[in-house]
Amino acid sequence: MFFRTNQFQYNARPERPDPVYAKQLQEVLGGQWGEISVMMTYLFQGWNCRAPAKYRDMLLDIGTEEIAHVEMLATMIARLLETSPVETQEDAAKDSVIGAVMGGARVEDAILAGMNPQHAIVAGMGATPTDSVGYPWNSRYTIASGNLLADFRFNLTAESQGRLQVCRLYEMTSDPGVRDMLSFLIARDTMHQNQWLAAIRELEADGLEQTPAPFSFPQDREKSEVAYQYWRCSDGAESQRGSWAAGTSPDGKGEFQFLADPQPLGETVEELAQLDPRLHGTPKKPMPPMAS
Amino acid sequence: MFFRTNQFQYNARPERPDPVYAKQLQEVLGGQWGEISVMMTYLFQGWNCRAPAKYRDMLLDIGTEEIAHVEMLATMIARLLETSPVETQEDAAKDSVIGAVMGGARVEDAILAGMNPQHAIVAGMGATPTDSVGYPWNSRYTIASGNLLADFRFNLTAESQGRLQVCRLYEMTSDPGVRDMLSFLIARDTMHQNQWLAAIRELEADGLEQTPAPFSFPQDREKSEVAYQYWRCSDGAESQRGSWAAGTSPDGKGEFQFLADPQPLGETVEELAQLDPRLHGTPKKPMPPMAS
Amino acid sequence: MFFRTNQFQYNARPERPDPVYAKQLQEVLGGQWGEISVMMTYLFQGWNCRAPAKYRDMLLDIGTEEIAHVEMLATMIARLLETSPVETQEDAAKDSVIGAVMGGARVEDAILAGMNPQHAIVAGMGATPTDSVGYPWNSRYTIASGNLLADFRFNLTAESQGRLQVCRLYEMTSDPGVRDMLSFLIARDTMHQNQWLAAIRELEADGLEQTPAPFSFPQDREKSEVAYQYWRCSDGAESQRGSWAAGTSPDGKGEFQFLADPQPLGETVEELAQLDPRLHGTPKKPMPPMAS
Amino acid sequence: MFFRTNQFQYNARPERPDPVYAKQLQEVLGGQWGEISVMMTYLFQGWNCRAPAKYRDMLLDIGTEEIAHVEMLATMIARLLETSPVETQEDAAKDSVIGAVMGGARVEDAILAGMNPQHAIVAGMGATPTDSVGYPWNSRYTIASGNLLADFRFNLTAESQGRLQVCRLYEMTSDPGVRDMLSFLIARDTMHQNQWLAAIRELEADGLEQTPAPFSFPQDREKSEVAYQYWRCSDGAESQRGSWAAGTSPDGKGEFQFLADPQPLGETVEELAQLDPRLHGTPKKPMPPMAS
Amino acid sequence: MFFRTNQFQYNARPERPDPVYAKQLQEVLGGQWGEISVMMTYLFQGWNCRAPAKYRDMLLDIGTEEIAHVEMLATMIARLLETSPVETQEDAAKDSVIGAVMGGARVEDAILAGMNPQHAIVAGMGATPTDSVGYPWNSRYTIASGNLLADFRFNLTAESQGRLQVCRLYEMTSDPGVRDMLSFLIARDTMHQNQWLAAIRELEADGLEQTPAPFSFPQDREKSEVAYQYWRCSDGAESQRGSWAAGTSPDGKGEFQFLADPQPLGETVEELAQLDPRLHGTPKKPMPPMAS
Amino acid sequence: MFFRTNQFQYNARPERPDPVYAKQLQEVLGGQWGEISVMMTYLFQGWNCRAPAKYRDMLLDIGTEEIAHVEMLATMIARLLETSPVETQEDAAKDSVIGAVMGGARVEDAILAGMNPQHAIVAGMGATPTDSVGYPWNSRYTIASGNLLADFRFNLTAESQGRLQVCRLYEMTSDPGVRDMLSFLIARDTMHQNQWLAAIRELEADGLEQTPAPFSFPQDREKSEVAYQYWRCSDGAESQRGSWAAGTSPDGKGEFQFLADPQPLGETVEELAQLDPRLHGTPKKPMPPMAS
Repeated sequence: MFFRTNQFQYNARPERPDPVYAKQLQEVLGGQWGEISVMMTYLFQGWNCRAPAKYRDMLLDIGTEEIAHVEMLATMIARLLETSPVETQEDAAKDSVIGAVMGGARVEDAILAGMNPQHAIVAGMGATPTDSVGYPWNSRYTIASGNLLADFRFNLTAESQGRLQVCRLYEMTSDPGVRDMLSFLIARDTMHQNQWLAAIRELEADGLEQTPAPFSFPQDREKSEVAYQYWRCSDGAESQRGSWAAGTSPDGKGEFQFLADPQPLGETVEELAQLDPRLHGTPKKPMPPMAS
Repeated sequence: MFFRTNQFQYNARPERPDPVYAKQLQEVLGGQWGEISVMMTYLFQGWNCRAPAKYRDMLLDIGTEEIAHVEMLATMIARLLETSPVETQEDAAKDSVIGAVMGGARVEDAILAGMNPQHAIVAGMGATPTDSVGYPWNSRYTIASGNLLADFRFNLTAESQGRLQVCRLYEMTSDPGVRDMLSFLIARDTMHQNQWLAAIRELEADGLEQTPAPFSFPQDREKSEVAYQYWRCSDGAESQRGSWAAGTSPDGKGEFQFLADPQPLGETVEELAQLDPRLHGTPKKPMPPMAS
Repeated sequence: MFFRTNQFQYNARPERPDPVYAKQLQEVLGGQWGEISVMMTYLFQGWNCRAPAKYRDMLLDIGTEEIAHVEMLATMIARLLETSPVETQEDAAKDSVIGAVMGGARVEDAILAGMNPQHAIVAGMGATPTDSVGYPWNSRYTIASGNLLADFRFNLTAESQGRLQVCRLYEMTSDPGVRDMLSFLIARDTMHQNQWLAAIRELEADGLEQTPAPFSFPQDREKSEVAYQYWRCSDGAESQRGSWAAGTSPDGKGEFQFLADPQPLGETVEELAQLDPRLHGTPKKPMPPMAS
Repeated sequence: MFFRTNQFQYNARPERPDPVYAKQLQEVLGGQWGEISVMMTYLFQGWNCRAPAKYRDMLLDIGTEEIAHVEMLATMIARLLETSPVETQEDAAKDSVIGAVMGGARVEDAILAGMNPQHAIVAGMGATPTDSVGYPWNSRYTIASGNLLADFRFNLTAESQGRLQVCRLYEMTSDPGVRDMLSFLIARDTMHQNQWLAAIRELEADGLEQTPAPFSFPQDREKSEVAYQYWRCSDGAESQRGSWAAGTSPDGKGEFQFLADPQPLGETVEELAQLDPRLHGTPKKPMPPMAS
Repeated sequence: MFFRTNQFQYNARPERPDPVYAKQLQEVLGGQWGEISVMMTYLFQGWNCRAPAKYRDMLLDIGTEEIAHVEMLATMIARLLETSPVETQEDAAKDSVIGAVMGGARVEDAILAGMNPQHAIVAGMGATPTDSVGYPWNSRYTIASGNLLADFRFNLTAESQGRLQVCRLYEMTSDPGVRDMLSFLIARDTMHQNQWLAAIRELEADGLEQTPAPFSFPQDREKSEVAYQYWRCSDGAESQRGSWAAGTSPDGKGEFQFLADPQPLGETVEELAQLDPRLHGTPKKPMPPMAS
Repeated sequence: MFFRTNQFQYNARPERPDPVYAKQLQEVLGGQWGEISVMMTYLFQGWNCRAPAKYRDMLLDIGTEEIAHVEMLATMIARLLETSPVETQEDAAKDSVIGAVMGGARVEDAILAGMNPQHAIVAGMGATPTDSVGYPWNSRYTIASGNLLADFRFNLTAESQGRLQVCRLYEMTSDPGVRDMLSFLIARDTMHQNQWLAAIRELEADGLEQTPAPFSFPQDREKSEVAYQYWRCSDGAESQRGSWAAGTSPDGKGEFQFLADPQPLGETVEELAQLDPRLHGTPKKPMPPMAS
């Protein structure tokens, strides 16, 4: 069960409104690699966890923390969309960014064009659980497979893509309040990249998983002849220069082999069998219409 | 530019039709972690690559190989859905699985219920670019950020989740032909997990990226006080036992610190500013309707 | 069966083209709370209705009216996107908004930036069944549950959210023709809010439904101890001041009770059971790989 | 900021596994009217709230409670999918539901057919944030408009549709553990329907909103002639018998008027203007191809 | 504006309920090529039409007819899901298909497994605007480009794919009532295929459009050297045998030319330019972190 | 199996960057009628083909060619988004379009507003598999029914809609490099429209398909009375003037008949049967709550 305290995990106050930036910042709230994605991913991995309790508890710690990040970003966006406190309705029309948006004269179409119109029409200048082009968050961004090595690799990715996007957004604003909050989120992503790297090592140290994931599948059931072969299917000249083309593989179980001119191992393509005529697909030879 | 040779990369022939399994196998063709996803991901990462050419060429090698995997799976599914060659329409009705599906008597409703009805109605017993619940593949499954460390971590994840799913599907069938093909795909995923691990190491060896990604963001701009702190936001007792709670962090740049009872650092939640009344949100105090 | 008369329900003609506003106006055509949503919702509720015929007939009256609203909005948007009739191609380039859009010089990028590019590229300056960010309408916006109290509450919501959005769009334009049409739609939404309020009362007067919906579920099967308790899960100080915290509940069947410091009633979280190893999830203890 | 306690809000333990029911129960976890929807809706309404603090605090209380409901349902589903604790791999194959699913013999295809295959292949027998047909949750289910009357009407709907679905699911199982948990959720939905009814009354009592929503739009700007007219657009005979056809309207501001044979008020449909020829739409008269 | 008459265009009554078939029949109601798609497509093409009025009026005739098809299918599905009229609640439990679905004993899991669970849980045994796997209809299925040749070719496709699916569904049932309705829909699709073929010829006869669409684009601006070349990019031996490989092209403007061994015409792939370092993509050479 | 050669099919180099146009050009890469759609459609039709091998081989030739078109467009977009090679970070900030985008001063908001923000934040100035409003490509754009006449009509449509969009985009730029590439794609679309027209004729000449599709369904099973009737359901005056209203139908099997005042053939709408009370829908008459 969950409780909320009426204080933000960290500051979430811009120096001034900026509705165009509010649209862009949505990416790390409701985008594929935004905070809703990690919140949901960690919570579902935790609730579904059948591994030792330390992993489950850790997942639920970080999943719970991420709800606070969602809260900070939602608040920041709502403030980026707001006017300064106004005394009267008339002043609002004259003096504020929002006034420009709503103004019949439409003299500031550039601002309006750069805004997400749904911020005004749908959300009344509030944050929305969508990304920077207004595409709604969906739960295919939540990953929980039951195999923790596969999942922790995803988590490490999420913290890398997420930190990358927050860094880009940091460069795209000069507002000190926004940058202050983003510097906090960037630091937490540094922590979380390290956390998942540590957790991956721990899974291996505990003997629970190892490369290739899943560890528990008997390797003699795979087609071992091709398990360490590099197939050069595109004729670029440089791919042979990488460490993936020769030497011992990172899992320590094979030697990389470079096939410069790989050949197919399967059969020549043959015709598929004919279909039941009641499915009315195009057959190989003319057939009379079916009897009625 | 691309060319196709009329031979499969590896065998793609089941011993006998199995339309229920055909539905399940769709997951690794058109699902989130299926072959279309890695095909598109590697090709787009390659086409967008601004890093040294060996990375681009390698991405395009593997992206091109994945098209062949899509081809094998599509063919396998079309064959799992097909009848044996039939001489006459009447025989089809009597002797085949498809006949049972189409039969008015509906005596084999269990088979029909387990099939994807779109295999019959929409695709005429062909493969579809959808997953095992019939949800269409979409390009949010394609990741290409321009930062190769972030992307290679995604690629490693994709090969882990993908291999996990193929292994599960291997357990769910006893058809020797299907298992033969899957053993090939599992082995290629072993290769590709190793390949991405090697590529990650190479990025670091080349001095191009390192943890935390992105490497090029000045670390003194992040809120360093919280960059190595573990916040225990859920009261499970076990999370302190992991290597993420103490010791040197995997990036070698910090010491993990465990906060057993973390406290918020931000301000107490305050009221948001009032909205321009022309947006007709609910205000803090009653206002008369606007003048017309 | 349906028939169409070649006259609009009300005027749908702007004074002048405005392609940026055309994009914004899409929200109430193809957005979540737009006219397509209510059209489809009322028709499906009517076609599926198993309640007295007066409800079904009323649903089909209003559902049919909404098709006319879709028609008016589509026409208005097509006209907002159009040029004045032009004699020659050269004039078009010089004299019209569209000319600016298509012009090689791109001097009016602000207009172009504010347009939905699909209006030009995909629809040839016609209306599209999408919202103001170009997201396609989908049928999850259609609600028809078979329980009319639940559905009429949805309908009341739809007319409220819809009227709110139309009012906001009214404020965002000064075109007299557009405002004339919107004033008609706003008035119809006033009618329809009243209509659903009346219909909700009638369901109760007819003895068919009452709060809590669904009425027909035996209330002694619910956990009655918690059916009127307010749980304060967030530590804001003000929530106790509302009428939801004390007094008789609106259904007249209980007394609100305020729990200022609610405690969980369920068990402490325990470990989930181990998984069949053939699913290759991470287990609680190390296991050797499965036999091949 | 949020914290989690390691105890469920209420019990979440089935008497025995039932993977077919697990699929069905997903509807109220990740479906349109499931617990994720209300969790996200109430939190976003709270974070965006610009109305008096009692409303914001109340929204955040109930939003935080809903996270606990998500937790209970996810756990219940994970348990419905699990085997009893097993000693050995061989036993698993023989004695459990999961064994049947994984078994090569496929003797229990009916069970398999009724399951969501992604529960096995994608989630390793864990809960997923999807509905009962496997469609992913998406944030268009989250409503927060900034107008609390419009939003509270939505919330009342959500608790009605949600309670309806939970009641139906209650009827579809006889497992005492499942029914125990559902009886708790049904009771909470009773509370929450009452809570939103009370909150709607309070908005009106506070003078902040009233019918028609939004209250703050000047009513003299709407086309008042049609604001209380019932248009009979479908020829069913019964719609005139409802309270929506005559008498004072629920908002007390008008008299319902029944138009038995309504006539269009708008112009006859006319041709749209011709398009800039560079958009290559079909014109009214033949034109030569454009000069190159 | 639209009106509805309270009579079906044609019969819509099954002989008996069949909830599994109801799920399958959804494909032609709410699927990609179902009746909602053609209804919306024809109406939007009509509303956006800037061509001679005979085309617009024809589009609106057929678009309006399609609403009646949606109505028939929705009603048929609601009836396939219903029980026979029942006297008492107890009988319902014992004697009906629905009773089996709801029964605690779950003895008829095959039926339940084959149903769409949302028919019961979400829609209370009513039709839904979704396809046969429960995927919601969306407006990307609506095509209206402003170019009538392009659009009429789509319409011809829609009537072909739609008739194909209805024919397949005809084969999948033996219910005389269902087959009667489907025979009507199949015949209307025969009409509509002919109608679009006639309309395509008329566009050409009127001098408004011709192949290649769009006709109005100056053909000398296209790269004419490759406008009639067949490129054999896959090494199958048979493609040269088709009429597309030699002879005069159907538009009468060129001669087909078969390239058995086509060669790329573009440049060798070169490196992309380096990115602004503030985007934190992976560069070609190591760079120090940016100054803070 | 597939191979790639490291040379473009045709040139893909703009004269200068143009990030606003990059956004627009996405439509024909990742939009509904873009190159990914035809690539996937032709490949899946080829892999699923059960017709004579010449059709399969032809489908795979063209499907493989389309991968090269995807490659050209992706590269063009990446180049439209790039800066000229820069020596130093400072120069980047001053002299380039990208510099303007990233600049704190935000003096060029119009450019920024017209860009897709995900090009910067998500893709690091690379192409994405999305359309011009950022909506992701999805596989419902891939059509493969097993009936080649239905599918080739779709393919003809795709080449028509696609060529139309490319022509519009040609008009929207004056960059010679972009226009050069587009002139190549327009010419290939000319070829492919002709190719599908030829293939449709060949299917008929081979006796495999004819109008109405599917040919193999016995025409005496359709309701022949209505198979050539035009129903005028909208009261426009002009629809009678088309060739669809009289004369022999294009399939040569009927005579068009114009119904100026069509009448419904089906029954008057009747009430649906009552529902099992355990589904808690609204019944026709009041019922007491169920016994617990």
